[in-house]
Amino acid sequence: MVPPNSNSPEGSSNCGREMELDRIAVIGSGNWGSVAARLAATNARRLPCFQDEVRVWVYEERLSTGELLSDVINMTQENVKYLPNVKLGPNVVADPNLESAVKNATMLVFVMPHQFIDETCEMLKGKIRPDAKAISLIKGMELRDEGPRLISREINDQLGIDCSVLMGANIANEIAVEQFSEATIGFKDDKETADKWVQVFGTPYFEVTPVQDVEGVELCGTLKNIVAIAAGLVDGLGMGNNTKAAIMRIGLREMIRFSKLMFPTVQDATFFESCGVADLITTCFGGRNRKVAEAFAKHGGKRSFDELEGELLNGQKLQGVLTAAEVSSFLKAKNWEESFPLFSSVHAIATGLLPPSAIVEYAELRKIVGTPELHV
Amino acid sequence: MVPPNSNSPEGSSNCGREMELDRIAVIGSGNWGSVAARLAATNARRLPCFQDEVRVWVYEERLSTGELLSDVINMTQENVKYLPNVKLGPNVVADPNLESAVKNATMLVFVMPHQFIDETCEMLKGKIRPDAKAISLIKGMELRDEGPRLISREINDQLGIDCSVLMGANIANEIAVEQFSEATIGFKDDKETADKWVQVFGTPYFEVTPVQDVEGVELCGTLKNIVAIAAGLVDGLGMGNNTKAAIMRIGLREMIRFSKLMFPTVQDATFFESCGVADLITTCFGGRNRKVAEAFAKHGGKRSFDELEGELLNGQKLQGVLTAAEVSSFLKAKNWEESFPLFSSVHAIATGLLPPSAIVEYAELRKIVGTPELHV
Repeated sequence: MVPPNSNSPEGSSNCGREMELDRIAVIGSGNWGSVAARLAATNARRLPCFQDEVRVWVYEERLSTGELLSDVINMTQENVKYLPNVKLGPNVVADPNLESAVKNATMLVFVMPHQFIDETCEMLKGKIRPDAKAISLIKGMELRDEGPRLISREINDQLGIDCSVLMGANIANEIAVEQFSEATIGFKDDKETADKWVQVFGTPYFEVTPVQDVEGVELCGTLKNIVAIAAGLVDGLGMGNNTKAAIMRIGLREMIRFSKLMFPTVQDATFFESCGVADLITTCFGGRNRKVAEAFAKHGGKRSFDELEGELLNGQKLQGVLTAAEVSSFLKAKNWEESFPLFSSVHAIATGLLPPSAIVEYAELRKIVGTPELHV
Repeated sequence: MVPPNSNSPEGSSNCGREMELDRIAVIGSGNWGSVAARLAATNARRLPCFQDEVRVWVYEERLSTGELLSDVINMTQENVKYLPNVKLGPNVVADPNLESAVKNATMLVFVMPHQFIDETCEMLKGKIRPDAKAISLIKGMELRDEGPRLISREINDQLGIDCSVLMGANIANEIAVEQFSEATIGFKDDKETADKWVQVFGTPYFEVTPVQDVEGVELCGTLKNIVAIAAGLVDGLGMGNNTKAAIMRIGLREMIRFSKLMFPTVQDATFFESCGVADLITTCFGGRNRKVAEAFAKHGGKRSFDELEGELLNGQKLQGVLTAAEVSSFLKAKNWEESFPLFSSVHAIATGLLPPSAIVEYAELRKIVGTPELHV
């Protein structure tokens, strides 16, 4: 948990000991990346333990105006494409060159679509300080035969640096306008660095809590999307909040069960943090996964997710459908499907093997209580 | 947790051992009482271990038609006043006489507004079987200097019989039309009786799970209403799901913290059950407490809860406001307010000491993380 004052001005006294000021680099400049840069820039200006300048690596693109995105950000202090009308701060520098963006940085913030993380780590090899600390804000993982391939682990393995994660109920645009919300930082064993990350991101309107459970925190950010599909199906079936709450609860329990099976160190308490129950609520009442699943159920499953995604999300892929497919093929391989009826049903429904109504079919749900040895 | 088949037809084999068939009486015939009677009647017909007849004590009243409510229920099998258009079942008998309603009953279901429980127990003394088992579906408790006065304990003390509780995300009218939902039974130490209560209420569309934590389960049903007020304030302030989810999470943590302070035996896991997170979600997205609190915030706290209750609820009192008042005076007496900023803020806002916006004021919320010794 956050020690008192850790992300208040007084907290800055924590850095008295440091000989060298920390330098923050944000790797990625989409919607969430821009908000993360804005938070970090605010604290870099406010706290004496950080260098003022926060460099942001911009994946360069030419705007319809003919200008380069990085130039416009540096001229206007706004990411006009991904976070318009919000000032990032005078100390934010957009840099299209990855190597110079991370030069001398001691704190690296990874925030980009997860499919780009491999090549980005490749490009960073030999370019970063060996003593740099990393944090991943990236949601999404791949499941392989041997288990989930967490992005924090990927960064750790490829670059040989400690990597924490930041997850939680945070909708970038709401945080950009400083509406109160929270996040959870998952760290491995370095509490001092975790507290420093709290100083990088925490503000009076953005409460950040560190927990020593990097796997649990990161898995929340991915698995919740499967539950959001289930919640959207319930909405589309026109069922009440009662049923929706029940499905969300059953989904939360499968999230916990799955995470603990993958990593026995995962803590139940993690799921009471922002990354757990709070993010689940946000995702199941708003968000893309819920929305498309609702439409899917309304059409009685007659129109495919691919088709509806194309229509509602301009072809962008739904994280929840992909994750459900990965998780259920993993569960099939392990012969664990019966213990995860909700996860398994979501995939079966998405692929047309079961009708949308199966999401509340007792025959499916009762399997949950039929496997006591797996109870969380 | 529910053992496999415990509330499926096969489960009936569980009663093979019994010499005598159990007899169910439902004490109360409002909206929820009528739904409870309907569930019990279905299972009494279905399972061989129960006598078919389910007697329901009706607090007699004369309808606008001039007929007596109990007569109409017995003629039409419908509680035309509190659950119209739903058949209760051919084996439900409405009885305006409390003594004959509970005669020979071995399983007593208490379901009535909590202010009537004392006098009802008074009337029942000497009228019930000493070996009868009780279950309370009543939400609401009183807090006295010595701590919460749980209704299950009240029934246990006054009548000297074991009393479990049934709580959860259940909106009576949704269950009446057989929409899938769940409930949690909290029991003290008699697992066999708890499993029997699962047989009384469980159906394919109403999943009932017993947990050995009667205090935790009962407290959920009361404390959630304070959080629903907070959630309604957030809605009224026009904030996003992000903020609402954060407030609900912080509220859940105070529910856990308060319950454990009151009863050290309370389990974290209880709050992952239907009575915990699921009921909280249902109550914070629907329900009276949320609705009136939303209106209160929209009027900037200028119009009192009393006034708005009168307008929106025909003068019916809001459980959440009453509970917040009881809890906060209790916390004040113990000097524990700082550890429960959300509970305390709700009361301060409801009484006009703080503006509605205080519900998301960082200065309040950060106290939560400023008291590590109380972390759950």
